[in-house]
Amino acid sequence: MSRTRTTPGRRVESDVVDIGEHEFESGEILPDLKVAYEAYGEFDGQNAVLVCHGLTGSQHVAGHGTESGVSGQARAWWGDIVGPGKALDTNDYYVICVNVPGSCYGTSGPASEGPDGEPWGTDFPPVTVHDWTRAQRRLLDHLGVGRLHAVVGGSVGGMNALDWAVQFPDDVERLAVVASAARLDSQCLGIDAVARRAITSDPNWNGGDYYGEDRATPDAGLGLARQLGHLMYLSKDSMERKFGRRSAGRGDRGDAFPSDPAAAFFPYREVESYLDYQAEKFAERFDANSYLYLTRAMDDFDLSEGYESDAAALAAFEGESLLVSFTGDWHFTTEQSESLAGAFRRVDVPVAHHVVESDHGHDAFLVEPEKVGPPLGDFVDEGVAGRAVTDTATDGGEPDEEEDFAPVHSSLFSR
Amino acid sequence: MSRTRTTPGRRVESDVVDIGEHEFESGEILPDLKVAYEAYGEFDGQNAVLVCHGLTGSQHVAGHGTESGVSGQARAWWGDIVGPGKALDTNDYYVICVNVPGSCYGTSGPASEGPDGEPWGTDFPPVTVHDWTRAQRRLLDHLGVGRLHAVVGGSVGGMNALDWAVQFPDDVERLAVVASAARLDSQCLGIDAVARRAITSDPNWNGGDYYGEDRATPDAGLGLARQLGHLMYLSKDSMERKFGRRSAGRGDRGDAFPSDPAAAFFPYREVESYLDYQAEKFAERFDANSYLYLTRAMDDFDLSEGYESDAAALAAFEGESLLVSFTGDWHFTTEQSESLAGAFRRVDVPVAHHVVESDHGHDAFLVEPEKVGPPLGDFVDEGVAGRAVTDTATDGGEPDEEEDFAPVHSSLFSR
Repeated sequence: MSRTRTTPGRRVESDVVDIGEHEFESGEILPDLKVAYEAYGEFDGQNAVLVCHGLTGSQHVAGHGTESGVSGQARAWWGDIVGPGKALDTNDYYVICVNVPGSCYGTSGPASEGPDGEPWGTDFPPVTVHDWTRAQRRLLDHLGVGRLHAVVGGSVGGMNALDWAVQFPDDVERLAVVASAARLDSQCLGIDAVARRAITSDPNWNGGDYYGEDRATPDAGLGLARQLGHLMYLSKDSMERKFGRRSAGRGDRGDAFPSDPAAAFFPYREVESYLDYQAEKFAERFDANSYLYLTRAMDDFDLSEGYESDAAALAAFEGESLLVSFTGDWHFTTEQSESLAGAFRRVDVPVAHHVVESDHGHDAFLVEPEKVGPPLGDFVDEGVAGRAVTDTATDGGEPDEEEDFAPVHSSLFSR
Repeated sequence: MSRTRTTPGRRVESDVVDIGEHEFESGEILPDLKVAYEAYGEFDGQNAVLVCHGLTGSQHVAGHGTESGVSGQARAWWGDIVGPGKALDTNDYYVICVNVPGSCYGTSGPASEGPDGEPWGTDFPPVTVHDWTRAQRRLLDHLGVGRLHAVVGGSVGGMNALDWAVQFPDDVERLAVVASAARLDSQCLGIDAVARRAITSDPNWNGGDYYGEDRATPDAGLGLARQLGHLMYLSKDSMERKFGRRSAGRGDRGDAFPSDPAAAFFPYREVESYLDYQAEKFAERFDANSYLYLTRAMDDFDLSEGYESDAAALAAFEGESLLVSFTGDWHFTTEQSESLAGAFRRVDVPVAHHVVESDHGHDAFLVEPEKVGPPLGDFVDEGVAGRAVTDTATDGGEPDEEEDFAPVHSSLFSR
């Protein structure tokens, strides 16, 4: 595929499409599901790449010079990976990212207008990862995209990508699952549960009914939930290096949380300042009900659901797969990716499990694009044989769950 | 020392002593600090062992047949370790445990009556680990106990024990620090900060003023804080084994936290049920302001404070020390204990770092008494040469921070 480095790679579509009636996995029906998406580059019939966003991400995966005041993952969250000349090169590929149902960036969710003209709130149907996948499939139908050259997803977006291989195995040629897993473990389920309780315990949450001018929003609860998220996304080592036990200036103390006289005797630490800042920024950009809905979808996802095993769930998939994991990620661990790689191997799906040495924790998939880009780009271009792609299975073949693996650190940043 | 196995070991004192005026580290003065303690066995002038409790523990370290409705660490929290014929044998030793200032089990704290006859609330002076140690010293003076045969502490109680070696190095012969560290790392500081924000964000906290009949207490915020604690105390492996992704019965859903209709589509999991139960039980037994005060004291503790290093802080200590750590503990890690062992070694304090293979997380020091008892009991009896005591330094001597250590698993349960 030629790399023209001309204007096509800079072409951006940004739209909200009413895909009509949609039956959710719960059985509830929405007469008019609206789906917000962005697409970059030009579709040539065979070059579509679907990128699935993380929990609080948006369809705005790449920068296109029109960014406004949005922040966090609402703003070009993979701008170093997707774009003209980037790993997912929009000169070559038609890259589509779809905001998932239940979210709050244009796709229907709890904050959207319900049948009575008021926001749905928690009357919005429960949402699952299957619902995300099916809504994406229908949006792609609308766009005239059949088979996808690749589906790529990070974190819970990786679960979304895996779900494509189960629900629409014939529609995906290459599947890249970054910093993800076949399912959350008990510890992460526990942390998510506490995060939701922080939101629902905030009196301003009010059963999910807090929308409208002059109404107080559950910012404190949502802020706590976000702080828990950040604690999960960072590693012990990265926190120690970034913040240690250092004090922040008193002037930095945010007003996001109440305090008391006795607190003033103790230092306000950089780690607190960071977490308070993140809480405040997040409450400005995300909807508390969406956080409840999307974490429930993530918690609920289990690759093997309805099958005897993860391998059985993947048996119909005939494409190739790349798994990228990060050694310092305790949210979605390298062991979980290796177990998933074993499932692919058992059903003879060509798979590479590329382990990145990193102490950035789960956050690495966003903050270390120089480590993610090369294997991801080469895989999307050339499959598991791609130059920068490494694999934990030395023989690249036989399944062996007990086998130790030696992560090979990629230093091929030549793309 | 003979083991008589007669009634003396069953003797229990339980009292609250007014130790008079006490100047806190903050400079604030309490005219009448009340200190609650329990003591087991009989003092013979040389057999006193001070046990320092964990964050939410109480002076009630051992069972004595008078337990009432209290639960959790308020109830005989080390009853399998301390007692007649146990590792810390109350037939031999006079074991004292003192509720720390700032707590809520009889020693003065935010819930105690202040000068105006009302509870102090957050006007109670800020409390540090140094304040705990000095209050303990004064209580021991009152009891006629000078030099201690041993100081033993688990978790933040281990920090309290370390502080004894710094503040009163001549008063301690043997020092046992279990599942603890010279200071909290950044990740734990972050989690504690979020826990405190959960409390202070609860409107019922009301600036710390919530005492009195018919007043709502910040149970939701305190419950969230406790849930974070449990997430820290358990390991990924132990949670996976205990709860996995299993559903609990719907009937088990607690009423501690509000929920919404969309939640009902998803399973209520065992991990949630466990966390909700723990939240509810904790709010019944602990004071929210005390949780703020004691976590701040823990966060603030730094062994090297006022010294050039941990080793320098320990230089005046002429006794022996045992450190016990647990491989699955990510709150207070084996690495932190090994670093602390290095500090002792550098100033030629005889030290043994006994590593216990365990996947129980931080909780292991409470739930695996069969692994803690033998090394602890033998150490208190015989010092670092005690039979069940192992050490990470194969030569038991020269400091070598870079040295790998092979944990030796003790299977000597013969005591």
